[in-house]
Amino acid sequence: MADAPQRIEQLIDLMARLPGLGPRSARRAVLLMLKKRGAVMAPLAQVMAEVALTARDCLRCGNIGDADLCAICRDERRATGEVCVVENVADLWAMERGGAFKGRYHVLGGTLSALDAVGPAELRIPLLVERVADEGISEVILALNATVDGQTTAHYIAEVLEGAGVAITSLAQGVPVGGELDYLDDGTIGAALRARRRF
Amino acid sequence: MADAPQRIEQLIDLMARLPGLGPRSARRAVLLMLKKRGAVMAPLAQVMAEVALTARDCLRCGNIGDADLCAICRDERRATGEVCVVENVADLWAMERGGAFKGRYHVLGGTLSALDAVGPAELRIPLLVERVADEGISEVILALNATVDGQTTAHYIAEVLEGAGVAITSLAQGVPVGGELDYLDDGTIGAALRARRRF
Repeated sequence: MADAPQRIEQLIDLMARLPGLGPRSARRAVLLMLKKRGAVMAPLAQVMAEVALTARDCLRCGNIGDADLCAICRDERRATGEVCVVENVADLWAMERGGAFKGRYHVLGGTLSALDAVGPAELRIPLLVERVADEGISEVILALNATVDGQTTAHYIAEVLEGAGVAITSLAQGVPVGGELDYLDDGTIGAALRARRRF
Repeated sequence: MADAPQRIEQLIDLMARLPGLGPRSARRAVLLMLKKRGAVMAPLAQVMAEVALTARDCLRCGNIGDADLCAICRDERRATGEVCVVENVADLWAMERGGAFKGRYHVLGGTLSALDAVGPAELRIPLLVERVADEGISEVILALNATVDGQTTAHYIAEVLEGAGVAITSLAQGVPVGGELDYLDDGTIGAALRARRRF
């Protein structure tokens, strides 16, 4: 890219580091931004700078907000005594999109992984144990992904919280709403069958 | 997205307008940026703001630069009398990556299109005619895409420049370097056959 001015090259390089964008699509994105400098590029740069400056990890739950405590932790109506444990902020956003959960969250920041040398301390698990003791929490809902690492982490947390006097639950496994049996994997069908309920 | 803080939502919306990014991948990109605020997000915002502020269309050729004339138009060594006509800046960058062309460019900004009501005036074609008269240009190389619109535009330009005392050429059509005949379309094979040369 010795062809584009240096600063534009640099912009393409930085854009190409974002997930879902390679060098080629980063170039296309930058070209569109250059075409719409006023309508797209300038506002995007400004909002991005503001977010980079103001965004902070919530000291309590690990969610992203703009103060020591995130909006959910500040909201007293959400002090229901239920804490939903998720792997990352993306999962928290996914839960919030549904709007079904009225309590607070605890973002682990990943899953336990022997391969990647991720232990409980890296995952804010000690902080969860503290919160359970301090905040009068009655139920910890494990909303971890149904992957091997996610379930390993769930089992570890359940073990750590044993005897803390708190109910530990996890999301139900079964047929997705609108899902067709023919397209579901055997594991899901098996789990849905074992967890069958009276109609 | 009533779940993420407002400014982050706004950032996701703006990112989702870039080509190659939908709402979902924009969210993923923003989450990664939020994770790497110092290493990715802040520099990206800064470079983007600088480019938005400094980037300008070259008054002569339409390339993107940082002054009235782009780096190529400023470079006297590139006053070879050859002007390569391309559809857009992306194509100019593609030509420059090869490094085979030593002259200057003229960026049309699109192709003639009756459907989209794009006429010669929208395309900087009058400016090309002026340049041929003023700059002592000896050859106009039409490097337009081998699409219907591209070739229509090429024919129109050739007509307009007839009698201007300038050689008009176009890129050769044929087998791409490293190309396998088995994977080429019939049109390309036919063009390569018609333009065959003594071995």
